[in-house]
Amino acid sequence: MFERRQPIPIAEAVKKIMEYEMQGVTEPISIEESYGRFLAEDLTATCDVPHFDRAPYDGFAIRSIDSSDASASHPVEFEVVDHIGAGMVSQKLIAANQAVRIMTGAMMPEGTDAVVMFEVAQAYEKNGIPYMSIKREFKAGENVSFHGEDAKEGEVLVRKGTLINPGIQAMLATFGYNQVPVAKKPLVGLFATGTELLEVDEPLVPGKIRNSNSHMIAAQIERAGGAVQYLGKLPDVFDTCFTAVKNALDKVDILITTGGVSVGDYDFLPEIYEKLEAKVLFNKVAMRPGSVTTVAQHNGKLLFGLSGNPSACYVGFELFTRPIIRRMLCSSKPHLRIEKAILETDFPKANPFTRFVRSSAYIECGKLKVTPSGLDKSNIIMSLAGANSLTILPGGTRGFTKGAEVDVLLLEDQAGSEWPW
Amino acid sequence: MFERRQPIPIAEAVKKIMEYEMQGVTEPISIEESYGRFLAEDLTATCDVPHFDRAPYDGFAIRSIDSSDASASHPVEFEVVDHIGAGMVSQKLIAANQAVRIMTGAMMPEGTDAVVMFEVAQAYEKNGIPYMSIKREFKAGENVSFHGEDAKEGEVLVRKGTLINPGIQAMLATFGYNQVPVAKKPLVGLFATGTELLEVDEPLVPGKIRNSNSHMIAAQIERAGGAVQYLGKLPDVFDTCFTAVKNALDKVDILITTGGVSVGDYDFLPEIYEKLEAKVLFNKVAMRPGSVTTVAQHNGKLLFGLSGNPSACYVGFELFTRPIIRRMLCSSKPHLRIEKAILETDFPKANPFTRFVRSSAYIECGKLKVTPSGLDKSNIIMSLAGANSLTILPGGTRGFTKGAEVDVLLLEDQAGSEWPW
Repeated sequence: MFERRQPIPIAEAVKKIMEYEMQGVTEPISIEESYGRFLAEDLTATCDVPHFDRAPYDGFAIRSIDSSDASASHPVEFEVVDHIGAGMVSQKLIAANQAVRIMTGAMMPEGTDAVVMFEVAQAYEKNGIPYMSIKREFKAGENVSFHGEDAKEGEVLVRKGTLINPGIQAMLATFGYNQVPVAKKPLVGLFATGTELLEVDEPLVPGKIRNSNSHMIAAQIERAGGAVQYLGKLPDVFDTCFTAVKNALDKVDILITTGGVSVGDYDFLPEIYEKLEAKVLFNKVAMRPGSVTTVAQHNGKLLFGLSGNPSACYVGFELFTRPIIRRMLCSSKPHLRIEKAILETDFPKANPFTRFVRSSAYIECGKLKVTPSGLDKSNIIMSLAGANSLTILPGGTRGFTKGAEVDVLLLEDQAGSEWPW
Repeated sequence: MFERRQPIPIAEAVKKIMEYEMQGVTEPISIEESYGRFLAEDLTATCDVPHFDRAPYDGFAIRSIDSSDASASHPVEFEVVDHIGAGMVSQKLIAANQAVRIMTGAMMPEGTDAVVMFEVAQAYEKNGIPYMSIKREFKAGENVSFHGEDAKEGEVLVRKGTLINPGIQAMLATFGYNQVPVAKKPLVGLFATGTELLEVDEPLVPGKIRNSNSHMIAAQIERAGGAVQYLGKLPDVFDTCFTAVKNALDKVDILITTGGVSVGDYDFLPEIYEKLEAKVLFNKVAMRPGSVTTVAQHNGKLLFGLSGNPSACYVGFELFTRPIIRRMLCSSKPHLRIEKAILETDFPKANPFTRFVRSSAYIECGKLKVTPSGLDKSNIIMSLAGANSLTILPGGTRGFTKGAEVDVLLLEDQAGSEWPW
């Protein structure tokens, strides 16, 4: 009467998916649009930084050699022969005991090799000509930012696969990357299945619920860095479903369906995979929630058959689909980051299978702590709102008590893990 | 010769800014666009969830009273009179010892009050009519998800000011929020000043550098949740600058300038504030970098005069501008989140003023650790790329050694702090 499915371990399921070496595609976009995208190439320095010796302070640029005799009892006087701000270049040739008044960021005038900050100079005029004097020696290079001090041309500064943050934006601008090579967002198609589903703007009727999974998954795709193509709800007619799935595969990089993958009487997906002649990588995983997650491959495209149950759907996406999206964004750490945390509440339920508990991770007194973000019934969406992590409670355990050390997967983190299992 | 400025403590500077009770504006947008935005109103349940008693498993819905005599030696038989999936509603009136074959998510047929999972039922046919039998009693309510069990109509589920994550997207869909009341992104105008600045696509020339601050700040504005209006570079002509700033104020919610706020010979901003008759809240803060940050107010708009120095600019934005943006996004925790961390490298430099060190915070063995993300010269943008935090080293200290407990401000975090100082 039921189809018997053989659950496989989580690590094996993830491995089967990651064997498909989906490649990232480079897309050049303008620097204005690149924040929050992923670098598709290593970011290299296109010039030395600074690309000239520069004054890091407001003051007077001098030839240090002229200051060698300066002391409290023997001030040395300089004639101030020029005055430059950042962006200006002095045209003067600096002779002995001459100085240039210089502002932060300006290029050191030729021949000068030290900057006397205003605070330690005595400035005055004689016959309308500006002078300044100092009471100590300045060493060659004192208060100078040197050419190439921050970066050398050709140096790799940031590795490909890195999320572009404000600091990287600054670097891109510094090195003239008006066009930035970022990873094209993989296009993830999304079908919902289920006769019970209403659209968000439809009124409730008995027995039906609004389709929340598609909106949730769409946001998860965006969080992972993908682009969403919502393809609508699949009707309850096999041929229509089959054609819709088949046609969608040509238009997207990855295809997700929610619902219809279990062994229920109205679950069409297994038959669709069969008729497509898709290779089913697995259709049951030893985990809760999400055990009925099915992943198949057809003509080099991956089909993720996620559960219709919101929690199972959520977890299935994060464990199985996210790493493929991140891989296509050139990440070398495509999996959710895993960390140790202290469990802050008892979790008395036994775990025959490894359980992923939606939870809220937070730092307290410098330590990572975690607490379930709501009841753990798999049909309760409420707990998803407060979840920033999934606590892993390994299978074969008899429950956990407050204070236990547990593994958590961090959902909002961008650093990632190479392999969390 | 120099203007003497009186530095004020950081907390006082932040307080002066936050006294301007900038209000968030509600903008209704479609649910498809709401991921990553901030709720402008509390999210309340518009119906009970579930809004009908539902089967949480595949099985048979029965009247529990009919099972009261069931035991291993005395199985009780039920006639299966209907078959429903999720979204279907049984039209049958269930009489004694009748059952309905039911799929997960379907509405409990009238009169039934328990679900017998397939695994514990014996199903068979007699004369083409389906039957099933059970060998134990089922209690009223057993394996039923009750009407209103997850949420009650009118209940506040998520507070305003919360960032919309995938779980909240699911809730919005569940409760029919096709239009979502989010906080309008404050429009932040951005001018760069400095003769030394080239555009990103211009070739380098002696003494000039590409404008990296505007791109960095634009990304910081986006990270904070604001919208960017880049207004270009201000030329070195006072009247033109003045008019540009004055006109921009009418078009944006917040105005940021980078550079020109110090006491250098080419720093125009102080004069512009004066001619505008803007009220300068402060023009020097007891901190490094960023001490010359100036904040002024004119006709209810805030003007942030950030330093032209990249690091100072970065820090000034995060400490002073970000909380105003978050306030306008309805957040009750608008400041950067502060946490305790273990310093993982020596920091021998003395701190006459409180120092914000660009750093990389990470969790190791369940503990938050932090290490400077590069050299701490204030003109080095390289260290900004790896920074996800600012380590606070209080003023009046003689340096720190590895293992010390320090405060860190987390730049990528979305939870925020009510008040970090």
